[in-house]
Amino acid sequence: MKMLQILFLLFILLSSTNALVQDFCVANLKGPDGPAGYPCKTEAKVTVDDFVFSGLAKAGNTSNIIKAAVTPAFVAQFPGVNGLGRSLARLDLAPGGVIPLHTNPGASEVLVVLHVHKGDIMVFPQGLLHFQANAGGKPATAIVSFSSPNPGLQITAFALFGSNLTSALVEKTTFLDDAQVKKLKAILGGTG
Amino acid sequence: MKMLQILFLLFILLSSTNALVQDFCVANLKGPDGPAGYPCKTEAKVTVDDFVFSGLAKAGNTSNIIKAAVTPAFVAQFPGVNGLGRSLARLDLAPGGVIPLHTNPGASEVLVVLHVHKGDIMVFPQGLLHFQANAGGKPATAIVSFSSPNPGLQITAFALFGSNLTSALVEKTTFLDDAQVKKLKAILGGTG
Amino acid sequence: MKMLQILFLLFILLSSTNALVQDFCVANLKGPDGPAGYPCKTEAKVTVDDFVFSGLAKAGNTSNIIKAAVTPAFVAQFPGVNGLGRSLARLDLAPGGVIPLHTNPGASEVLVVLHVHKGDIMVFPQGLLHFQANAGGKPATAIVSFSSPNPGLQITAFALFGSNLTSALVEKTTFLDDAQVKKLKAILGGTG
Amino acid sequence: MKMLQILFLLFILLSSTNALVQDFCVANLKGPDGPAGYPCKTEAKVTVDDFVFSGLAKAGNTSNIIKAAVTPAFVAQFPGVNGLGRSLARLDLAPGGVIPLHTNPGASEVLVVLHVHKGDIMVFPQGLLHFQANAGGKPATAIVSFSSPNPGLQITAFALFGSNLTSALVEKTTFLDDAQVKKLKAILGGTG
Amino acid sequence: MKMLQILFLLFILLSSTNALVQDFCVANLKGPDGPAGYPCKTEAKVTVDDFVFSGLAKAGNTSNIIKAAVTPAFVAQFPGVNGLGRSLARLDLAPGGVIPLHTNPGASEVLVVLHVHKGDIMVFPQGLLHFQANAGGKPATAIVSFSSPNPGLQITAFALFGSNLTSALVEKTTFLDDAQVKKLKAILGGTG
Amino acid sequence: MKMLQILFLLFILLSSTNALVQDFCVANLKGPDGPAGYPCKTEAKVTVDDFVFSGLAKAGNTSNIIKAAVTPAFVAQFPGVNGLGRSLARLDLAPGGVIPLHTNPGASEVLVVLHVHKGDIMVFPQGLLHFQANAGGKPATAIVSFSSPNPGLQITAFALFGSNLTSALVEKTTFLDDAQVKKLKAILGGTG
Repeated sequence: MKMLQILFLLFILLSSTNALVQDFCVANLKGPDGPAGYPCKTEAKVTVDDFVFSGLAKAGNTSNIIKAAVTPAFVAQFPGVNGLGRSLARLDLAPGGVIPLHTNPGASEVLVVLHVHKGDIMVFPQGLLHFQANAGGKPATAIVSFSSPNPGLQITAFALFGSNLTSALVEKTTFLDDAQVKKLKAILGGTG
Repeated sequence: MKMLQILFLLFILLSSTNALVQDFCVANLKGPDGPAGYPCKTEAKVTVDDFVFSGLAKAGNTSNIIKAAVTPAFVAQFPGVNGLGRSLARLDLAPGGVIPLHTNPGASEVLVVLHVHKGDIMVFPQGLLHFQANAGGKPATAIVSFSSPNPGLQITAFALFGSNLTSALVEKTTFLDDAQVKKLKAILGGTG
Repeated sequence: MKMLQILFLLFILLSSTNALVQDFCVANLKGPDGPAGYPCKTEAKVTVDDFVFSGLAKAGNTSNIIKAAVTPAFVAQFPGVNGLGRSLARLDLAPGGVIPLHTNPGASEVLVVLHVHKGDIMVFPQGLLHFQANAGGKPATAIVSFSSPNPGLQITAFALFGSNLTSALVEKTTFLDDAQVKKLKAILGGTG
Repeated sequence: MKMLQILFLLFILLSSTNALVQDFCVANLKGPDGPAGYPCKTEAKVTVDDFVFSGLAKAGNTSNIIKAAVTPAFVAQFPGVNGLGRSLARLDLAPGGVIPLHTNPGASEVLVVLHVHKGDIMVFPQGLLHFQANAGGKPATAIVSFSSPNPGLQITAFALFGSNLTSALVEKTTFLDDAQVKKLKAILGGTG
Repeated sequence: MKMLQILFLLFILLSSTNALVQDFCVANLKGPDGPAGYPCKTEAKVTVDDFVFSGLAKAGNTSNIIKAAVTPAFVAQFPGVNGLGRSLARLDLAPGGVIPLHTNPGASEVLVVLHVHKGDIMVFPQGLLHFQANAGGKPATAIVSFSSPNPGLQITAFALFGSNLTSALVEKTTFLDDAQVKKLKAILGGTG
Repeated sequence: MKMLQILFLLFILLSSTNALVQDFCVANLKGPDGPAGYPCKTEAKVTVDDFVFSGLAKAGNTSNIIKAAVTPAFVAQFPGVNGLGRSLARLDLAPGGVIPLHTNPGASEVLVVLHVHKGDIMVFPQGLLHFQANAGGKPATAIVSFSSPNPGLQITAFALFGSNLTSALVEKTTFLDDAQVKKLKAILGGTG
């Protein structure tokens, strides 16, 4: 078991003595993904460690265009959430950092602030456009919890200006000027 | 019953003789809306007409900035879909018309083309950005069917440029230039 | 992409630039079917064409005993609906045609009229007995949208008179006369 | 508490000492019914008796045309099942009795035999046509458990021949002869 | 078909004549289990027998420490419940027998008494602690129906005292005395 | 808007300009609670503040028998989670503190550590017995996120020893000794 349990001890009572129980479905990531998730790992191989994940304890790298990082704990990283309709991610925003305008197509989102205003929480109903921006002078950190094991993250600017959608269509469907669209396509790598 | 049944006769066998049945929940729109929909209309008052709606038979008015119209058949217009997780809308697009970039936050969408390429169908998974544009020379019509009685329709440009979100924030979260943002705010009525 | 997009352009912004996204599960029909649908096709192979289907644009053959045809766009024909809880079908009814008394065991049904009274819509709550009959003098066409990728269609007469259920049991459980049951079994191919 | 607990003691640990708990929603039948059920009874008034029901212990009256009786334990009779997606009923079939061809539109059904072949169980997937007939010489009793608090019960013969559907339409949609339809309408009280 | 149908005849109308239907998903237990259940058995191999189970007709062996037995009809024993969100079990309690304090983590439970107070029913909301005890002088039998194909059964005493959880942790999290914990660990086979 | 937004700016684009949208259902706590939650607050009165909650920023009082505190952000405290199937709580554990053996009957639980091992996450499948204990020398804090707006929290010891369940029944269903049961009933306030 992970070192974390030495200081902050957590325990799930796995019912090793009870042949009738199967109350979870830890992902076997080698199996085919389906609409409800991955096939279940054989129960005999499941341990408490499958339900604990330390990959969000470390800050993401914010040396990028948005001065921000998203570190996922989706089913691929954290197989214990398979079939539970849950997943998480860590957001790191340097001063002035931003998670640009986006939606999470398949999930509502709950955000818990770890730094800056520790303990504040926010809820974002499913599919609504929103963004996060760190308007303060210090790094900010939050954990977001989604109502899906694969919530998706569709950043509007990347979808429009980093894809192969033609400039004419982008302009027609967003009302943006041609020069603006071409400028952003050049920055974000779009073609077409 | 509506005239439609004279030519194209449809019938649901409502079980008026069977006191055990309650298999639908036509909306009582006077009751309070809740997460699962409206309270049910008293069963004795339900008729076949509650399950038929002719409001989509007439074209919407496309004399507007997007040369397009969306006519809803949501629970408010069509109370028979209450609690069924379903609703519909009619799209009319004049030549060159467009339903701008948008998401349906709470629903997947199936589109059935009535005009132009009659019978073609498309499916849009929930919450993904998409748009419809009529690139042909004739009016186009489609019926869209949503997986929610209140699917929502969040048009990105209207949300960004027709709201009270400050220009500074719009720019920061979309990478757009200040002049572009201010120009569109002026057109779409945004403040802030 | 299909020719349809030349006239009536539709677009889903697939997030090819975003490794975090998986917001759909197009069916891999070679995988085993399960209660929630088929396994997902590898995302790299998914294209816009997976979400468009033209198989309903052509009328079904109504030269049969019911003067009607049902053309399915279920998950087997239209893999893009996998896991979305959606499917469609086209109904064609010649003058006097009928889709006999039936239920859709696993789905509610929304019907959109394409011909005759174009744009009229109807909703059928899940599992209730109903039928469609074309009482007019012209062919009628409709698209039906179901709340399941595999809605089922159980036509009462075919189930009773086209199966191997004994005449004695059919009579006992439907109150029909022996002569009537045997006559219909002869027509619809029932044994037993 | 009911006498039953004297012999066969059952107990739910209601968390009267814990202000955070609300894990059930016993129906307040005076409130408006909605798609998800009735409003919840105030928790302070909930007792163990709300979760126990003895109304199925007594046989229904089988002196009728089908020699059978259905005694419901739906949300109206057994408010403890509100919001749990569950309900039950008791079937009594005299020798030769029959629950005629029917569907449960909104529920799958599990049947547990109490008499005749005690302990045998059957499962009926949602919405499929089925019937129960007692082909033996003794009374048979079963408890059925549904996957809905209001499963519905649509008996095909009663819907067709006990309603105001015209004979012409019944004939067209079922292939039955005119004489047969009129005979059964006379027996089962249909008009039209 | 099983002998049971000779006396108490039951029938599901499988739609062998209708290629569009797939309204059930009998488990192929050789396939990988997933969050929504097992893959479906090929429809051509499905028969009425897949929906009938006689394994609960025989009493379980109550010669044990709790004078009680639980006989499961879960998806592994009764593949017809796959994907239906349903399962059953038989409880046998000798005089003085007890199903100790437990929860069904993934399901609500409906209990139907077969012996002692035949026909009485009880409902247990999901996840709440409860127990069953036979306080009478005769054997008692009940069938329980769960809202999940794999409801789980976590008996508190076995989880605490039959596992490898250390005595120190058991004591800290239950307030029990050290002597009590060690005594029960010795009886129920716990280590640690 | 709350002060939090000055430093860590968050924004949901509420579609005030779009009459078709209703994508959330903030609780009107004066309405009757139902199986799916509370009725919706009138949309015109909804603001961004309904989706932000600062009540978890302050530590709970751990001067008690378990040296721990649970501060809820359920629908009663945080109406924005109504109908979203989500809620949160803050756990504070002083050194040696413990959240005793318990289940969350209606929800899976994701735990995010704020103090001690900041950023570690754990997932607890629905309904399984578990506990949290702070085995370190410093106060520990965590935010837990539940898959239900009303997850419930049933602490085994309080349910058994703080209720009116008789000692004889507690003993019979838990295997505990009479002296142990009476000692804990005296401490935790149980009667019977």
